[in-house]
Order: sequence, then C-alpha cells, then structure tokens
Amino acid sequence: MNYPDSVRIIEVGPRDGLQNIKEPIETKHKVSYIEMLAQAGCRDIEITAFVHPKLIPQLSDSVEVCNLLHRKQAESQRPLPAGINSVPPVPTNVGNYFGDINYSALVPNIKGLERAIECGIKDVAVFTAASETFNQKNTNTSIDGSIERFREVVNLARSNNIKVRGYISTAFYCPFEGRISPDKVVDVSAKLFDLGISEVSLGDTIGAAVPTDVEKLLEQVLARFETNTIALHMHDTRGTALANVVQGLRMGMSIFDTSAGGLGGCPFAPGAAGNLATEDLVYTLEKMDIKTGIDLEKLSQASRFMENILGYSLPSRYLHASKCAKC
Amino acid sequence: MNYPDSVRIIEVGPRDGLQNIKEPIETKHKVSYIEMLAQAGCRDIEITAFVHPKLIPQLSDSVEVCNLLHRKQAESQRPLPAGINSVPPVPTNVGNYFGDINYSALVPNIKGLERAIECGIKDVAVFTAASETFNQKNTNTSIDGSIERFREVVNLARSNNIKVRGYISTAFYCPFEGRISPDKVVDVSAKLFDLGISEVSLGDTIGAAVPTDVEKLLEQVLARFETNTIALHMHDTRGTALANVVQGLRMGMSIFDTSAGGLGGCPFAPGAAGNLATEDLVYTLEKMDIKTGIDLEKLSQASRFMENILGYSLPSRYLHASKCAKC
Repeated sequence: MNYPDSVRIIEVGPRDGLQNIKEPIETKHKVSYIEMLAQAGCRDIEITAFVHPKLIPQLSDSVEVCNLLHRKQAESQRPLPAGINSVPPVPTNVGNYFGDINYSALVPNIKGLERAIECGIKDVAVFTAASETFNQKNTNTSIDGSIERFREVVNLARSNNIKVRGYISTAFYCPFEGRISPDKVVDVSAKLFDLGISEVSLGDTIGAAVPTDVEKLLEQVLARFETNTIALHMHDTRGTALANVVQGLRMGMSIFDTSAGGLGGCPFAPGAAGNLATEDLVYTLEKMDIKTGIDLEKLSQASRFMENILGYSLPSRYLHASKCAKC
Repeated sequence: MNYPDSVRIIEVGPRDGLQNIKEPIETKHKVSYIEMLAQAGCRDIEITAFVHPKLIPQLSDSVEVCNLLHRKQAESQRPLPAGINSVPPVPTNVGNYFGDINYSALVPNIKGLERAIECGIKDVAVFTAASETFNQKNTNTSIDGSIERFREVVNLARSNNIKVRGYISTAFYCPFEGRISPDKVVDVSAKLFDLGISEVSLGDTIGAAVPTDVEKLLEQVLARFETNTIALHMHDTRGTALANVVQGLRMGMSIFDTSAGGLGGCPFAPGAAGNLATEDLVYTLEKMDIKTGIDLEKLSQASRFMENILGYSLPSRYLHASKCAKC
C-alpha cells in the first residue's frame, strides 16, 4: 500500500477544542498552550475565533490571545518583521508576523475578518455545512446564504494576502437530516472554491462516519478537486475517526484536522470524544513511516498542561497510555 | 472495496475484560452480564478462565459461573440435552449444554481443561506468545515449552469433542523485545495448528500496532493459513484497534475478539483502554453493511449494567455517545 510520505496536521485544539469547554480558561493559559503546541512542531494551529462573544464565550478573548502571543514571541527574540518595533497593538498587513507558524482563526463574516486582520492573522477559516437544516440552525441562513456572506470575506482576505479555508460541517451525517449525499458536498465545495477559497475541510461533525462513508465521499470529491486542497476533519464520537483518516490516507489525502489530547469532546455529552486526538494520529502516522513533524512527547506535554488547567483527563487514548510506564 | 458480508465477534469481556479488574464482582452479576451479552446476540462468549485462583483472583469463581449459568438457562426453559434432567452439577460430555451459544473458557493446562470439561464447557482457549521474554514472564516457560504443555490439552479436548483456540500474545510488539518478526508469529501459529488447534488469535497485547503492522503480519500469516482460522485480538491502548481491524477486514479477515464497553482497560494504567470495545466495532461494521448479529442497544445495556456494578465509565466511545441524546 502506498501512503503519502508526509501529512499536514491542522491543530484545532485551541479553537474547536476549547470552544466546547464551559469552564473559563485564562488567556495566558491559552497562549501557553498554543506556544507548547508550536514547540511540539505543530505548524498549522487554529488559535481562536472572531465571533460574537455571546455565541462562543470561551473565545471572546480572541484579540487578547493574539496580542499576548505576538508579545511573547517578540520577547522570545523571534525577529520582528521590518518596520515593526513593538507589540501590541499589531498593525495591519505586517507580513507573516508569527514567524514560520500558520496561526489561523475562524471568522464568520467580514467583521470577524477585519478584527482578525487587526490582530495580524494571516490564515482564516469560514464555515458552512452540507446539510441545509444544520446550517440554518447553526448560522441562521441557508447554505447559499452563508456562501454569499463569504464573498466579501474572501475578497477582503485576498486583497490582504490572507488565505481562506472553508469548513463544510455535516459532510457525512447530519443530526437532523441523517446521511448527506456526496453530491451535496461536491456542490458546496465547488461553490467555495469558486469564491476563491484555497482549502476545503470536510467535517464529520457528529462523528458518525465509517470508512465506507469516507470512501464513497472521497471518490466523488477527489474526482473533482485536487487532493491537496481537501482536508478531513473527523470527530471520534463513536471511535471511528482514526480508521476514517486511514481510509483518507489510502486515497491520497494528506491534510487532517485534529485536536491535541482530543480536547473539546462532544459539546453535548460529558466524557464523550470530539475531534480526533492529535496524539493518536501522530502516533499512528509516525509508526506508519508517514512524517508529521510533530514531537509526540512535547505534544503530550501540551495536553497534560491543559488537563491540569481543566482538572480532568482528555480523551486521547495515546495520552492515557503515555502516563503508564508499562503500556 | 470488498469486505466480508459478515464477521464472527468473540466477546471476551467476561474473561479478558474482567480479569484485569481488581474490585471483586459477585458471581451472580457476572452471570447476568453474560446473559445480557447472549441476549444482545453474542454467539461466542469467553466467560471465564480455569486458572489458579492466585493468578487471577477475579476469575476464581469459574465453576460457580458455569453452574449458575447452566441453572439459569435450564430455568429459562431452554431445552436440556437428552438425559440431562437437573443442574448442577453438570455431567461430563453432555453435548452442547449451553444451547446455540459458544461459551468458552481459557485453560492454561490439562488441569484447567479437566475442570472446564466438568463444567460443561465445549470451547477452550490456550495461550502462548510470539515473544520468548513475554512468554517466559507470563507463563514461566519458553514458547516451545508452552506448546509442549498444550499437547495433552489438545488431545484430551479433541477426545471430548472440544475445540481448542490458541492465543498468541505479543504478535506485533512486546514490552520487552519491541517489534516482533512476522516470521516468529507464523512459526508459533504453525506449531499450534500442528497440534490440532482449530483457530489462532493474534494479539496486540500492548496495543501498539498500526495498520501497516497488521498488513505486514497478515501478508505472511494469510499466505500460510486459511483466513477463517485466524482471528485478530486488538487492544485499543493507543486508539489504533479499530483502524487495525479495518485493515484486517480489507485482507479478508472475519474473526475479531472484542470486549463489551472496552471492559478491562489496561491492567497497568487506570483509565487507559484495553480490548477494542465491541460497541465501537459493531457500530462500524453494521454501518459498513457487514453483519455481526449483535444488537447494539442491547449490547450497550450489558455494558451499562457492568458500569453500574463497577461504579465507573467504560472506555467505549460508542457507549459514551449512546448516553447523549444529541450525538
């Protein structure tokens, strides 16, 4: 079997992971967590979301997260871009202010993008769904309505040299509509790419997909779009996420979204898993001779740091095993 | 991709799951648990082990488990074999005393087999390893020594029309020797089949294998032995078990050992996963249109029953999700 030599892992713990956690977490702890992820070798980290504070209270400190991250990086003697002498505040259009790491943020609309730009963010992500019902309930508009909303977002982003990623939630199953047709996912993906979005991430939002679902969807998606523009964003709610990613790997996929420690879990069920844990994927890939660039022990340290902040264990199987001298 | 139409799942929760649990569990609860598993559609259940009580105190009530199970089945008006009017005690050589369910037991030696026969058990399993160091530490003899020990076990079993399964522990990785050569596993398997063992179960004892490991081992094993005589017994210590089983499925395998709820966990690490959870496998297989014969809701009821007895949650991802109305 031919697998890719290396993959790109998008670490979504600080955003997708934290957003489901009710306990308030101090900004300084979030930034330490992000720094530990970067030190572990994560090169794509979604660090926050510029959404209305009432929608995701946990991420209402997005500006502060960015500013503190900038300041700490400056203090740590990373070279600042030419013309930039002090932080904060962060001027607009400063080039890759965060060094060689892609710190990205979720933005729901133009206002969110403007704030992200002010914070020096160079990669953003927008989100829609493949299920009309889910999108209506989640964003209060139709899929086409949300895509129309993205038009000005993508235009402003591109004029600022900012890449835009598009999440498609419920790409496999919807809690309201059940199984989603691959045709629908292809259709929504095409509309996103037509807007100028650079990468589409297919989300198994409720963690219900199995490898044959991934196979059926990717057969259609990869027939239409370049493999290196499609990511898989699998949730481990029913334990299937890693098997689904391996199915994607077999079909040439090489971009996967995961959350360190499996941080976040299911927003509705205490103890239930959410995003595939970065540790479980990195362990598997490295042992399959597929390079991730991520140091598993340092990554686990970041997760254990967050476990200490939260006061409970995260779902990652590897993380549990790493605490056992005999495993 | 062609997967098998159906698989045989060997439910090992009452033996492999319980043996790692320190809290004493009443015999009546074990039997209720086994009955619930049977009612969920499990047709192969490893119910206990006839080992020295000091080695596995949790399973020291193996005779009582069998007798109570016999009695309850008789009381529930299952037809008793001809000539059998009352239980217990259970006479030897009574045919399939447990109806259409294969209740099996682990036996380390001839003495264990004799006790199993007295209890009406018709399927037994012996265990060795692919790692000399592991086998020496686990059974106090070499691999060849343990196989020699099995000779009289298999002979007595066959003369009693009892099938013998052989577990090969550390078939992928050993905690002492590291990676195990597929040649060694083929060699041990051949010796077991030569003795007259009907089925070999390949165990990822420390849950370290990834799909490429499964591929490499099965390429050699399945080139030598019939696919329907080989089982996979994967542990989920690092979250890889389901992906490994899917790799086995792709190569034609159709016998898998799992534990309801993932009961048992890692014997060394509280909270760490052990056997692949039956729920997670059944969910995946049924959604892949591969029949298991197992009712997922009834299976989850059995696991929730055991969670209530134990007073803590079991590792199965599906089981967690099943408690959430929105997942």
